Amino acid sequence: MPMKLFNKFYQQIAGNRLAHWLTCLPEQLSAWQKNDLHGEFYKWQKTIDALPNTKPSSIELKDSVTIGSAEDISEGEQKRISNLLMNFKPWRKGPYHIHGVHIDTEWRSDFKWDRLKPHISDLKNRYVLDIGCGSGYHLWRMRGEGAKFVVGVDPTQLFMMQFRALQHFIKDDNVNLLPIGVEHLPQLKSFDTVFAMGVLYHRKSPIDFLQQLKAQLAPGGELVLETLVIEGDKHTVLVPGDRYAKMRNVWFLPSCDALVFWMQRLGFKNVRVVNTDQTAFEEQRQTPWMETESLEDFLDPNDPTKTIEGHPAPLRAIIVANI
Amino acid sequence: MPMKLFNKFYQQIAGNRLAHWLTCLPEQLSAWQKNDLHGEFYKWQKTIDALPNTKPSSIELKDSVTIGSAEDISEGEQKRISNLLMNFKPWRKGPYHIHGVHIDTEWRSDFKWDRLKPHISDLKNRYVLDIGCGSGYHLWRMRGEGAKFVVGVDPTQLFMMQFRALQHFIKDDNVNLLPIGVEHLPQLKSFDTVFAMGVLYHRKSPIDFLQQLKAQLAPGGELVLETLVIEGDKHTVLVPGDRYAKMRNVWFLPSCDALVFWMQRLGFKNVRVVNTDQTAFEEQRQTPWMETESLEDFLDPNDPTKTIEGHPAPLRAIIVANI
Amino acid sequence: MPMKLFNKFYQQIAGNRLAHWLTCLPEQLSAWQKNDLHGEFYKWQKTIDALPNTKPSSIELKDSVTIGSAEDISEGEQKRISNLLMNFKPWRKGPYHIHGVHIDTEWRSDFKWDRLKPHISDLKNRYVLDIGCGSGYHLWRMRGEGAKFVVGVDPTQLFMMQFRALQHFIKDDNVNLLPIGVEHLPQLKSFDTVFAMGVLYHRKSPIDFLQQLKAQLAPGGELVLETLVIEGDKHTVLVPGDRYAKMRNVWFLPSCDALVFWMQRLGFKNVRVVNTDQTAFEEQRQTPWMETESLEDFLDPNDPTKTIEGHPAPLRAIIVANI
Amino acid sequence: MPMKLFNKFYQQIAGNRLAHWLTCLPEQLSAWQKNDLHGEFYKWQKTIDALPNTKPSSIELKDSVTIGSAEDISEGEQKRISNLLMNFKPWRKGPYHIHGVHIDTEWRSDFKWDRLKPHISDLKNRYVLDIGCGSGYHLWRMRGEGAKFVVGVDPTQLFMMQFRALQHFIKDDNVNLLPIGVEHLPQLKSFDTVFAMGVLYHRKSPIDFLQQLKAQLAPGGELVLETLVIEGDKHTVLVPGDRYAKMRNVWFLPSCDALVFWMQRLGFKNVRVVNTDQTAFEEQRQTPWMETESLEDFLDPNDPTKTIEGHPAPLRAIIVANI
Repeated sequence: MPMKLFNKFYQQIAGNRLAHWLTCLPEQLSAWQKNDLHGEFYKWQKTIDALPNTKPSSIELKDSVTIGSAEDISEGEQKRISNLLMNFKPWRKGPYHIHGVHIDTEWRSDFKWDRLKPHISDLKNRYVLDIGCGSGYHLWRMRGEGAKFVVGVDPTQLFMMQFRALQHFIKDDNVNLLPIGVEHLPQLKSFDTVFAMGVLYHRKSPIDFLQQLKAQLAPGGELVLETLVIEGDKHTVLVPGDRYAKMRNVWFLPSCDALVFWMQRLGFKNVRVVNTDQTAFEEQRQTPWMETESLEDFLDPNDPTKTIEGHPAPLRAIIVANI
Repeated sequence: MPMKLFNKFYQQIAGNRLAHWLTCLPEQLSAWQKNDLHGEFYKWQKTIDALPNTKPSSIELKDSVTIGSAEDISEGEQKRISNLLMNFKPWRKGPYHIHGVHIDTEWRSDFKWDRLKPHISDLKNRYVLDIGCGSGYHLWRMRGEGAKFVVGVDPTQLFMMQFRALQHFIKDDNVNLLPIGVEHLPQLKSFDTVFAMGVLYHRKSPIDFLQQLKAQLAPGGELVLETLVIEGDKHTVLVPGDRYAKMRNVWFLPSCDALVFWMQRLGFKNVRVVNTDQTAFEEQRQTPWMETESLEDFLDPNDPTKTIEGHPAPLRAIIVANI
Repeated sequence: MPMKLFNKFYQQIAGNRLAHWLTCLPEQLSAWQKNDLHGEFYKWQKTIDALPNTKPSSIELKDSVTIGSAEDISEGEQKRISNLLMNFKPWRKGPYHIHGVHIDTEWRSDFKWDRLKPHISDLKNRYVLDIGCGSGYHLWRMRGEGAKFVVGVDPTQLFMMQFRALQHFIKDDNVNLLPIGVEHLPQLKSFDTVFAMGVLYHRKSPIDFLQQLKAQLAPGGELVLETLVIEGDKHTVLVPGDRYAKMRNVWFLPSCDALVFWMQRLGFKNVRVVNTDQTAFEEQRQTPWMETESLEDFLDPNDPTKTIEGHPAPLRAIIVANI
Repeated sequence: MPMKLFNKFYQQIAGNRLAHWLTCLPEQLSAWQKNDLHGEFYKWQKTIDALPNTKPSSIELKDSVTIGSAEDISEGEQKRISNLLMNFKPWRKGPYHIHGVHIDTEWRSDFKWDRLKPHISDLKNRYVLDIGCGSGYHLWRMRGEGAKFVVGVDPTQLFMMQFRALQHFIKDDNVNLLPIGVEHLPQLKSFDTVFAMGVLYHRKSPIDFLQQLKAQLAPGGELVLETLVIEGDKHTVLVPGDRYAKMRNVWFLPSCDALVFWMQRLGFKNVRVVNTDQTAFEEQRQTPWMETESLEDFLDPNDPTKTIEGHPAPLRAIIVANI
C-alpha cells in the first residue's frame, strides 16, 4: 500500500510545464518510500494527522508567514498545536506564526529574505525552485511574492514534516516540498528562478553543483545563490578541515571574486554579488524551538571574528546571475 | 521538445486508483517517443490536426459508436472528414459513424460486443482495461455501458491514430489508448474488468499471458478473454506452422476445455465459456475502408471449414472468469 | 571478501570461444554470491574442505563415473568420505563410485546415457552444455566421451556441492557447473552440443525454452532434448493440474509429434525422436542416498500406467535435432 | 564478431588479485567496442598488423624504453617501422627506441620519471596502476623497475594504439592499457602503487578524483600524484578561464599547501611534496613526431613565467602519500 503523499503533486505537474519530470520523479519517490523512509516517519505522520483542522481568518505570506490569529481557535486547540509542533524540534528555519503560536526558530530566515528581495527579479507568476529549502520558510515567502508554482527540495525528512505541518493549515497546492537531494534532479530547464541558499559549501564538487543549478533554469532564468565566502582575491578558496563552525561536511568556501569567476566560466551571465553579511547573533541563536548549540557556540568566545576552529567567522554572500 | 500526448492521462491517473502506474509509465512512453515513433507519425498527426472541429448534436456509445449527424456539418466538412480518415486505412475494428461518414471497417466488432455483453458484469462505474484494443472500438462501447475509466493498450500506432481521430470528435478524457504492449504493463491489480480479445493466440507463452492478465485485475475483478480455439478435449492444443489463416505469429489454439483448465490451474475462479462462434463472412470482410485480403481469402475456397493452410477454420470462444 | 569459486572458470573461458560470456557472467555470479547463497552454503563448503585429498589410481569416465579404488586409501578415509558425502543427501543423479564408496543415487542416470549415446554425434573435442544438469553426472560422461569443454548449469546449490565433491577428487578444469538457471544464459551461440534433459516440462513457456536452447548452439550444433511426453497426435498436449507424479511446477507434456512440430516451427532441422521409454522402477527408486519418496510412490499402486493423480505414467522421449 | 583485444587481460586478472574487476570490466569494454570505437580504429589496427615481426636482441626498460637495435632488422624493415609508426602522430609521451627508430616525442617523460623515482617505494613485485597513462611510457618504466602487474588507463584511443605498437615488439602480458577513464574504475582497493600524473587539473571535481584514486589502493598502498600547482598558501587555488596554456578543460590548480591539505582531509597519510619543477623547453617541445604547437607556443613570448593567457607558467608538483 503505497502512500499517496505526492499524487497531488504529480497531478499538478502533469498539467504544467514540469510534466517531463514525471519520467523519473514518481519512480525516485517510490524508491524513496520503499528504502529511505525515516524510522519515525509514521509517528510523525500521526502527529500531523492530529493537528486540528482550523479555518484561518487570514493567511499572510508576503511580509511574514502568519496563519490566522489566536482568536480563530480555542485555547485548548492552540495548546494542542503548540504541543504537537514541539515534536518536530529542532525548528531551524522560520519564524512561523500559527494561530498565535509563535514558532521562534533558530534562524530568522526573514532577515535573509529582506536582504535578498530588493535584488531579485519580481517573482510574480514565476516557476520557482528552492534547493536545500529546509522547512520551506522561503517557499511561502516566494509564494507570497506571487510565484505561480513553488517547489522546494530537501532530503531531510524532519524538515518535510515541518513543511507539511504548515501546509496542513495553509493548504496551497502550488507550494510543494520534495524529500530529494539536488543530485536527484534531472535537467529540468524549467524554472524562472532557482534559489540555492546555504548549500554550495556542503558540496564536494562546487562546479558540478553550479552546473546542476544552471540545468534547472529555463532560458533567461535567474539564479539566487547564497553561500559562505571568505575575504580574498579570485585565487582564494578555503577548504576547512573536518569541521567548520562545528559543521561537518563543509568543503569549498571561495572568495566572492573566485565564486563569481567560477560562475562566469560556467556560462552564467550578469553575475553580481548583491549582498554580503556577517551573521549576527540576532539572526541565528538558540530558542525554545531549537535547544541545542547555535552560532554563539560555534565562534571563538574570545574572538567572534573566528570560528571555534580558528577559521574566519561565517560571512555569507548573495549572488544573483542569469543564463 | 517532448510531445504532450499523455500528460492529460498522467493527470487523470495521478488523481485516481491508477496513480502507482506513474512509477513506470511516463518513463516507458518517453522512451517510446524517443525510439519507437512510427516514421509517419508526424504526418498522421497533421491529418488529425486537419480534422474540422465540430459540435456533434449527439454522442451515441451505448448501441453503436455514432457521433452527431450529417446535418451538424457542411457537406464540404463531411467530405473532408471522410478524405482525411481514409489516410488511416486499413480500418479493421469498427464500425464508426461520424457526422454521417460511415467507416465500414473490416470487422463488425459490434457483433462480438453483442455476443459477450449479456455474459459480463455490468460495467457501470468500473475501471476497465482492454488489452490489444486495436482502434479502440470496444473502449467506446465500454464507456457507453457506464465504465468510469477506460484504458486500452495496443502497440500498433496506426490504431492509436484511428483512436485519436475518434477522440478528436468525442473528447472524453475517461477513454484512453496507450501505445504499449501487454508486456510493458506492471502488475497494476487495479481494474475491475480486463478484456483481452484476439490476443492470446499471438502470444508465444499463453501461460505467462494469462498470469499477466490476472495481475491487472483488482480483487474480485473479472476477465473477459476471447481467443481462437479448436474442437477437442482438454488435451487438445493446436500449434500451427508458419501461418494460420495467413496470419504469422500464431502460437497456441487450445480447445475450450484445455483453456478453461489452464485458467483454473492459474487460480482463476468461476471460469466459464459463454460463447463460441465460427466467424461469418458478414463479420469479417473487405470494405472500402480495408481493401486488402479478408476472411474469404483466408479460408479454403473449396471447404470453408478449413483455413487455406488446412487448419480448422477460425472458431472463437469467449471465456469469462473471476479472481 | 568475495569467494573465488569461479575465477578459474573465468580464466578458462577468457582463453576459449566462450570469452564473450564474461560480459555478463561474473556480474551475475557476483550478485548470486551476495543475494542468493543458500543458508547452508558455508557449512557445505566446510564439508567439501574436510574431504581427504587422495591420489586416485584411475579415473574412469567413459563407462561409469569411477574414481580410484578402495585400495587407494585407508579404511578410515573411506569411512570419512562416505560420512561426509552423506551430508549432501538427497543424491538424485548418479551413480558414483569414489574409492569404493558407491553413491547409489535415486536415478540410474547411466541408463539414460546408454539410451541416448548411440544417437548423438561423437562428443570428441566438442564444447558441450548441459542445462539442468543436476549433480552433473552426465557432465562427467560427456567428458569421458572426449568433449573438450563441458559446462553444466543448475540453480540448485545442493547439486553444485555434490558436483564439487566429485570435482574434489577428479580435478578436471574442463568440466564445470554453474549455479544459474537457463533464463540467465545470454545467447552464447557457442556450443557444439546442448543437452536439456528433464527440464522442458518444468518451463511455463516451452517455446521460449526451445528458443533459448537454440540460442546456445554454434552453427551446425546439435540439441539433445529429453522430456516427458504423452501418447497422441500432433495436437495433443497435457497440462496437468497442481501436481504431476507429485511434482509441482509441471506445465507442458506434449506428444512426440507435437514436440517435433514445435521444434520444426522454431527452425530446428532434422528433428528425430530417437528413443521413448517408460521409466522403470529399476531406474528411479529409493536408496540409502535418497531416502524420501521415489517413482513407486508417484504411481497409482493399482495401475502403474497412471500417476497417483491419474495422469499417464511418465513416458520420456529423447529428441535430437540440429540447427 | 567481438574483437578479442582484452581476453588475455581477463585471463590474467581471473588468476590474480584483480579478479573482482571481472564483475564490470568486460561489460564496460564490450559497450565501448559497440559504441565508442574511434572511426579510424580498424585502419589503425591494420597499421599495427602491418608492423614486421622482429626478434629484438634486447629489451631495455629500466633506464629507457629501448627495443633491440638497428642491426636486428633490415634497413627496409626499419624504414617500414618508422613509416608505419608515423601514422600514430602526434606522439606525446616517450621517447621510444625501436630497432634504432627513435620516436622523439613531444615530452621527455623520462625526465619526469627521473625526478620522481628516488621518492617512491620500490616497485618490485607490486601491482601498479597508472591513471591517465597516455601512450604508456611510464608503464614500461614501472615494469622495468620490477612491478609484477602494470595497468594503465587512458580513454584516448590513439594513445592505446601507440601502446599496442610498442606491445607488438615487447610482448609482455604483465603490462596492459585499457581505454577507459578513471570514472569507469570500480573501487578496486588492489594496487600497491597508483600513479596519477597530469590528470587532476583536468577534473571538474578534484575532491572526487582524489577519493577515486584512494579507492584503487590496497591497504598501505602509495599514491604518486603529479599535477599543475601555483605558488601560494593553503587558501590559494587558481581556476583559470576557458584556457590555461591553450588547454581547454583545466579546472583546479591549487597551491602545494592547499593540495596537501585536501589530501590529508581525505585521509591520506604521510603526504609530502617531493618535487616541484617549472617545465623547461627541453622537456616539452615540437619534434618531427609531434608537429603542432608545444610549450613555447603556450607561454607569453615576452615573459616565459606566464602562460599566453597571463596565468603563472606551468609549475608541476609531485606529491607522494599513503593510505
